[in-house]
Amino acid sequence: MDFSSDTSAAAHPAVMSAIQAANEGSAPSYGADPWTQRARELLADVFDAEVAVWLVASGTAANALGLTLLCPPTDAVLCHREAHIEKDERGAVTFYSGGGQLALVDGEHGKISGQALSARLDQSRREFVHETPVSAVSISNLTEAGTAYTAEQIRTLSAISRSAGAPMHLDGARFANAVASTGQTAADLSWRSGVDIMSFGGTKNGAVGCEAVILFGVQRERQAELEIRAKRAGMMPPKMRFIAAQMCALLEGGLWLDLARRANVAASTLAETLRAGGGELVHPVEGNEVFVRLPSELANALTDADGRFYPWSDGSYRFVCSWNTREEELEAVRSIVGAA
Amino acid sequence: MDFSSDTSAAAHPAVMSAIQAANEGSAPSYGADPWTQRARELLADVFDAEVAVWLVASGTAANALGLTLLCPPTDAVLCHREAHIEKDERGAVTFYSGGGQLALVDGEHGKISGQALSARLDQSRREFVHETPVSAVSISNLTEAGTAYTAEQIRTLSAISRSAGAPMHLDGARFANAVASTGQTAADLSWRSGVDIMSFGGTKNGAVGCEAVILFGVQRERQAELEIRAKRAGMMPPKMRFIAAQMCALLEGGLWLDLARRANVAASTLAETLRAGGGELVHPVEGNEVFVRLPSELANALTDADGRFYPWSDGSYRFVCSWNTREEELEAVRSIVGAA
Amino acid sequence: MDFSSDTSAAAHPAVMSAIQAANEGSAPSYGADPWTQRARELLADVFDAEVAVWLVASGTAANALGLTLLCPPTDAVLCHREAHIEKDERGAVTFYSGGGQLALVDGEHGKISGQALSARLDQSRREFVHETPVSAVSISNLTEAGTAYTAEQIRTLSAISRSAGAPMHLDGARFANAVASTGQTAADLSWRSGVDIMSFGGTKNGAVGCEAVILFGVQRERQAELEIRAKRAGMMPPKMRFIAAQMCALLEGGLWLDLARRANVAASTLAETLRAGGGELVHPVEGNEVFVRLPSELANALTDADGRFYPWSDGSYRFVCSWNTREEELEAVRSIVGAA
Amino acid sequence: MDFSSDTSAAAHPAVMSAIQAANEGSAPSYGADPWTQRARELLADVFDAEVAVWLVASGTAANALGLTLLCPPTDAVLCHREAHIEKDERGAVTFYSGGGQLALVDGEHGKISGQALSARLDQSRREFVHETPVSAVSISNLTEAGTAYTAEQIRTLSAISRSAGAPMHLDGARFANAVASTGQTAADLSWRSGVDIMSFGGTKNGAVGCEAVILFGVQRERQAELEIRAKRAGMMPPKMRFIAAQMCALLEGGLWLDLARRANVAASTLAETLRAGGGELVHPVEGNEVFVRLPSELANALTDADGRFYPWSDGSYRFVCSWNTREEELEAVRSIVGAA
Repeated sequence: MDFSSDTSAAAHPAVMSAIQAANEGSAPSYGADPWTQRARELLADVFDAEVAVWLVASGTAANALGLTLLCPPTDAVLCHREAHIEKDERGAVTFYSGGGQLALVDGEHGKISGQALSARLDQSRREFVHETPVSAVSISNLTEAGTAYTAEQIRTLSAISRSAGAPMHLDGARFANAVASTGQTAADLSWRSGVDIMSFGGTKNGAVGCEAVILFGVQRERQAELEIRAKRAGMMPPKMRFIAAQMCALLEGGLWLDLARRANVAASTLAETLRAGGGELVHPVEGNEVFVRLPSELANALTDADGRFYPWSDGSYRFVCSWNTREEELEAVRSIVGAA
Repeated sequence: MDFSSDTSAAAHPAVMSAIQAANEGSAPSYGADPWTQRARELLADVFDAEVAVWLVASGTAANALGLTLLCPPTDAVLCHREAHIEKDERGAVTFYSGGGQLALVDGEHGKISGQALSARLDQSRREFVHETPVSAVSISNLTEAGTAYTAEQIRTLSAISRSAGAPMHLDGARFANAVASTGQTAADLSWRSGVDIMSFGGTKNGAVGCEAVILFGVQRERQAELEIRAKRAGMMPPKMRFIAAQMCALLEGGLWLDLARRANVAASTLAETLRAGGGELVHPVEGNEVFVRLPSELANALTDADGRFYPWSDGSYRFVCSWNTREEELEAVRSIVGAA
Repeated sequence: MDFSSDTSAAAHPAVMSAIQAANEGSAPSYGADPWTQRARELLADVFDAEVAVWLVASGTAANALGLTLLCPPTDAVLCHREAHIEKDERGAVTFYSGGGQLALVDGEHGKISGQALSARLDQSRREFVHETPVSAVSISNLTEAGTAYTAEQIRTLSAISRSAGAPMHLDGARFANAVASTGQTAADLSWRSGVDIMSFGGTKNGAVGCEAVILFGVQRERQAELEIRAKRAGMMPPKMRFIAAQMCALLEGGLWLDLARRANVAASTLAETLRAGGGELVHPVEGNEVFVRLPSELANALTDADGRFYPWSDGSYRFVCSWNTREEELEAVRSIVGAA
Repeated sequence: MDFSSDTSAAAHPAVMSAIQAANEGSAPSYGADPWTQRARELLADVFDAEVAVWLVASGTAANALGLTLLCPPTDAVLCHREAHIEKDERGAVTFYSGGGQLALVDGEHGKISGQALSARLDQSRREFVHETPVSAVSISNLTEAGTAYTAEQIRTLSAISRSAGAPMHLDGARFANAVASTGQTAADLSWRSGVDIMSFGGTKNGAVGCEAVILFGVQRERQAELEIRAKRAGMMPPKMRFIAAQMCALLEGGLWLDLARRANVAASTLAETLRAGGGELVHPVEGNEVFVRLPSELANALTDADGRFYPWSDGSYRFVCSWNTREEELEAVRSIVGAA
């Protein structure tokens, strides 16, 4: 029973086959290969838009590279207090942008509240030289609480941020899970609702290591700068084809959505089971993560049975399902709950 | 006939198999997996020393991370004017170190001359606050001219740099080729000759994307800082096992040296052929690269036959062989030379 | 009636005379002059300790330079949410340190609460590579609320931060006012209570532009690095003597304390007057600043009489007195209050 | 006999009086004062153009701030190998710009040769992501060899740099001496010849500490960014009036040119004397500096008589005159030469 993270899951066989298949003879380096070109086309299809794209093997780098285009070194990115860029990326935004800061706001269930956003942006005076102003807003979908923004919710936030002159970034490390959960399209959950730049995650979805930085609309003009920034960060690998092949494998035939649905279903099932055992959900389960308070006997019983999951700072526990969460694992939880 | 670069070559089948084999079930993230542990052990064996190690998928990042440990943001790294860190990494050392600069010296065939090193270090006054002093020296082996430093040559340089208080870094993107070419051991070409931190390259040797930053001696105490720096750069991927598995595949059974020897032999053969066709070697061929001036008819004939190789800034051409350079490719060159 | 800021006040005549007197013939550049030497001696006397010192013309630079010695580019400085380094220095700490961040905590009347400090430091796990840990704590005395920490209060905080391995920095832009207000010594309000590095402000006290970065105890060993950091920031002016002469003028004969007392007395008097007019103090007046809610008629009457003071974000007003606040100005307020 | 530097000279009495006179009552902070406004107007007159201006107390900061507007963190500034920004500012350009580098070229007598400039710019390929391209060119006038570019020479260089898409920066720490020496106007030696941004130096001309960053033409639109960059570097002092008053004093009535002429004449006289004593000029004397090889007896005799001047790295000596070089000092040299 490994619910520790979708990052500890194996990669999907189709991804592995694609990597293998990409190893045919020589190919141009640094993204000039046909796999990278194909990944771009597939992303354009998925998002129903012309997009500019850079592929990287790291979610931290994807976020930092994208945000560097939106946040000058003298300004700040507004995000949720629990955002991955604040809590899990060791200052990467500041490092990549050469000084950009994070301005933190709150909101229930990992979502930025419109009120908090407005209030913070009102404080931010771009013409006031003494204080660091907010120049971009970053949301995560799925959020760090495992919840999913709907297109309507994103539009509400982007309207606020846009009126304050701040473009919107989306950390989509688990974007597939959000699309699967809301039933809305990739386009509706991104550029059509006001997202300017996003990270589109493959790693947690079933890849070995593959994320896309996607630029929408006028931001596409920043592609050259994006590549320069990637280059000096070591994010322009010569054998790019092996990253791109993964992205192609996930996108071809909609595999990415199938895998996300599978993980989401597993999480819902797990949540039901844990609630039956006395667990209380801390956040709605709208993706592949379950945040739950557990009776201590149940928590202990699961741990004793070699169940892996993380205690969370609010006293609850986090369980993460993946495309590869097996029915046996869910069944094992069920039987422990039954026995308790 | 693809002699464009060893970075455009396919990965070796053993590497591909290892990646596949690493995809068994779940594994701890961020380098806590058994493959990373095994790679560390194998590197310790190869270098006959206790070492601290961090694995990354990018040679640029490997160099920049290692040098950041040696060069504060207010100081400079001395390197050859043609060094990869100067000519091909878009300021990555400056970016990673937060301001560190490069001080350039010359020397024949891509090697730093002892005299130039001494002269430049004599100019550098650490106690003189107004000017940027040199605080580390970086050599490349193979050099950017395809030549190999011997252990004796490295010792001469490190003695000079050490007496000026500057530790030594080694960019070993093609270290395997240098070991194969000199017949000296990995230890003799590194820490036993005064190297403090090095990049050990796998990508050009036959991996998909795999480089090791290796800390020797007292520098091993910097491991925690190295990991922090890697983390915020996006160089701590969750599914680290897939990078580590590549390194294991190369090191097990000495495959890395077999592959390097194969590439070196191909380069020697190619060089002979080109000289027979009127080519003049610009640098001795001591690895898998050939720098050669060609009669223009021969250059044209090779290009017309879809031969791929780069014109170099000094008017010569660079041909790179890899583990995967095929006898047919060498034969094709031979027949073109014969026809000319 | 100018209560806008102590930074808009004129410099004290003794400071002006000292600048004039320093203009005799030529003198060594970059701090090697006798005035700088004298300023160091006087600061050692005032603080009753051996100290290392660097003088700068800017309070922002003084704070940033000092904190750069305590906070690596990968870590954070904890400070009060209202601290000058957060609210008024446009990211200077991040800029100077090459990436260091600020971690914000709350506390009444501008003082960090011991509880909030403990709670935040408990969250900070230095060995957890994924999140930015706190590596230094910065307090301000006077605080941004115009209140003064006592030596006891500082000791309480420094005991907490020290036990978490975080050294303590003090922003003393208005340190003179705190010494005058508490009646405690400069030593008791700094190193004897656990402060490792501080900014000692002259500008708001009556100088043209003069602040000292002071290193206590083992931090004195960082003097060379401090000077290097100052140099590359443009904070090593050739004609340093003109900055040092100001510091000497303030410290000779205890002028700095006389001036601070004068400003503090004026603020107390002003506060009394405003309270008599219906004002409610938002914070205790423990220095030269008054934060007060005013009946709108009174606020308007003062403004109509060309009174200068700032509306504050909490709906109150800030009045700042200086060494040069004149009795006529206080009297003018009195008569407006009387008339209301 | 103090010929060590124009930075060790006293400030001119008119500057001191202006500082004193600026100390009347309170004044708005951060550059909103009337002195700063007046300095802007005077600079517009001197340069016969609409200009945007920021005043700082440091020449290093003036250069770094100006260049930060021209050089992104991923690119390089081309300058002479002996330029102050390379040899004397401890990496300030890299620090301020967040990673920008210096690309060095040669040229006789401290001037960039047109040929070297063209050759280096031809190497620089902006669309080639792997290598750091040159995005700005910086010249110094006076050069570090004490020579003066004419307007024609500047036009030649700026035509080359402009055609490569690189704007031109001018380090004018001794610009007054260049104007006095060439007899050409400030406008001809700057914007009319293609300079986009410059540092206009007051400190070496007779101020306490006062330099202007001047933006010409379209670069004036960068004023807000310039102020933001200055702010976070601590280069926006509250009592700005005391810097601005110095600039006003120098510019009113053309004092700056009188002082520069005085220094230049002293240097010419000194050069004649030293040549009479067997000295050989290393560079033409076109300002207030003399670079000269001396018979060792003469060098010793001058040193024995407490003469102060610096040995230079090429074996010569540097003598610097200032507005305050006294006839007695020149006479003292004459008598030592006569006695030899």
